[in-house]
Amino acid sequence: MKRILISGFGTVGQGFCEVLSLRKDWLMERYGEVPVVVAAMDSKTVAKCPEGLDPLALVERKQTSRKVGEETYSDSLEVLGSVDFDILVEVSPTDIKTGGVGLKNIEYALSHGKDVITVNKGPLALEFNKLMTLAKDNGCRIRFEGSVGGAMPIINLCHENLAAEKIRSVRGIFNGTCNFILSKMDNGQPFEQALKEAQQLGYAETDPTNDVEGYDTAAKVAILANAVFHRDVKFSDVKITGITGITPEAIAQAASRNMVIRLIGEISETKLEVSPRLIPRDHPLGISGTLNIALIEADLAGPITIKGRGAGRIETASAIFSDLVAILDGRAEKLC
Amino acid sequence: MKRILISGFGTVGQGFCEVLSLRKDWLMERYGEVPVVVAAMDSKTVAKCPEGLDPLALVERKQTSRKVGEETYSDSLEVLGSVDFDILVEVSPTDIKTGGVGLKNIEYALSHGKDVITVNKGPLALEFNKLMTLAKDNGCRIRFEGSVGGAMPIINLCHENLAAEKIRSVRGIFNGTCNFILSKMDNGQPFEQALKEAQQLGYAETDPTNDVEGYDTAAKVAILANAVFHRDVKFSDVKITGITGITPEAIAQAASRNMVIRLIGEISETKLEVSPRLIPRDHPLGISGTLNIALIEADLAGPITIKGRGAGRIETASAIFSDLVAILDGRAEKLC
Repeated sequence: MKRILISGFGTVGQGFCEVLSLRKDWLMERYGEVPVVVAAMDSKTVAKCPEGLDPLALVERKQTSRKVGEETYSDSLEVLGSVDFDILVEVSPTDIKTGGVGLKNIEYALSHGKDVITVNKGPLALEFNKLMTLAKDNGCRIRFEGSVGGAMPIINLCHENLAAEKIRSVRGIFNGTCNFILSKMDNGQPFEQALKEAQQLGYAETDPTNDVEGYDTAAKVAILANAVFHRDVKFSDVKITGITGITPEAIAQAASRNMVIRLIGEISETKLEVSPRLIPRDHPLGISGTLNIALIEADLAGPITIKGRGAGRIETASAIFSDLVAILDGRAEKLC
Repeated sequence: MKRILISGFGTVGQGFCEVLSLRKDWLMERYGEVPVVVAAMDSKTVAKCPEGLDPLALVERKQTSRKVGEETYSDSLEVLGSVDFDILVEVSPTDIKTGGVGLKNIEYALSHGKDVITVNKGPLALEFNKLMTLAKDNGCRIRFEGSVGGAMPIINLCHENLAAEKIRSVRGIFNGTCNFILSKMDNGQPFEQALKEAQQLGYAETDPTNDVEGYDTAAKVAILANAVFHRDVKFSDVKITGITGITPEAIAQAASRNMVIRLIGEISETKLEVSPRLIPRDHPLGISGTLNIALIEADLAGPITIKGRGAGRIETASAIFSDLVAILDGRAEKLC
């Protein structure tokens, strides 16, 4: 019976608990047992029980008291050291500057031979190859499908389904918030107003810097460059232009040529770039709304396009759950 | 060292040999050895060598002499019985009425504990559950990514990446020939002329019945219903309408409403249908040309769209090769 420690109990951590609960019978039928959550931490508190905690009770406690546990802690690594677990689900907030507590947690787990599933872009965009080496040295699995594109399959699609392809390039829309804003601007709204609407709908955060300056897309671009192209790059290597400078005039000029402006992330052997680009309105990358999309150029299979929901409580949790299932199935490769 | 027997040496069998050759160094680097082709059969001749045949020499002999081997045979099962092999790559022509020699070959291989990779739609559309049971009873793998959508990943995407999803429905364009013809009709060509152009370009066969009557799409619909929805259906259960009855007037009427007509395959718990449908021009299913596309509705991940090349020598071979790599990686599940 696999024991899970969840670090981070915001939207995605809670969504993961909901999916675990939704799929309890399915897990029992498929594996004859259900993995248990032996600990769950938010930024200040922790709930622990070696026999397993009720995932939905954790969600309820968090939503009513804003705390997932009754015990407080100061050092997350002390918590990790005090719990017997097999899999770390690391979903604490992304810190793109330092990797934050997520990086420390993942390093600790891998060093101690634990498998890791994460959607935390900070550690992956900053220290990808260090983490893979740690996983290899300790014979662990590290999986991160949800870190790019949310519920849109792309990491494992490239790693597994397209394992034998030489991927020439990946171009895509990896930030639904920017795409929502740009889609609104297509209809004549100025940037500030489109941003406000995105914030009201919960698509953009109060401080939208990470999204609109292109940093979130750049983190995903860095992850794809390392994971799919086996390059050795860091977040700081990505050439980034955000969407804050895009004027209604630029949008109108694009429209007059039957084009739209979209924030595109592009990765190839030589490219590593996030920038607003002119896209023909009927091109696949000209999509409107919050969906994510990726155009993968493979040498044998040719062009492959994948599209799906790039964010969302249950959607992102479903990507984490798919990584868990791959580990339980024995399909997930140990990096040795 | 895995020993491969290839049955069927048309376009796809030859393409597979070319991919094997192209990826020789890659295989050596990844596995420390390269699988060998110990036998290759076309409809009348066979080439055999326990130490392995040169894949490219097989292709050359087939192209110059129209025969893959110098030895003739009358019963394919006698050939299978006379060769020591681990994996059958079954790519003989689809016989949608009886399953043909492909069905016999696959049954023989599975009964004898051999793994099978196939893109032959006949056996899968007619006897899917019988073949899965055979594989289970004998602890073998049977994989068939290329049977639906060619190089567009869909079977393993649903089976593996989306293993934990409840797939609500799959709707898609699974026949590039019909889509090419319908796209040409959008531009005012009558059916017969569009078909002729498809034949001249090699997209349609001399006898186009299988494509234009919807039988090819229906075979894929039956495969998806069994494989993804775990239903127990046969080709004959699919409700089929082809595209031969579509008039220029119908196309024009659709166009006046900003719609196009596309041949859609749809599978759900209750649906099993191939029919021409009115699709809004800017809907994902409104694509033009020979690409395949599938819209997958998943309960947790939400809508996922995948698009790629549904046919082609190297493209279809790349799907077979991806199944081979999954087996060599140990990612392919034995059905036990």
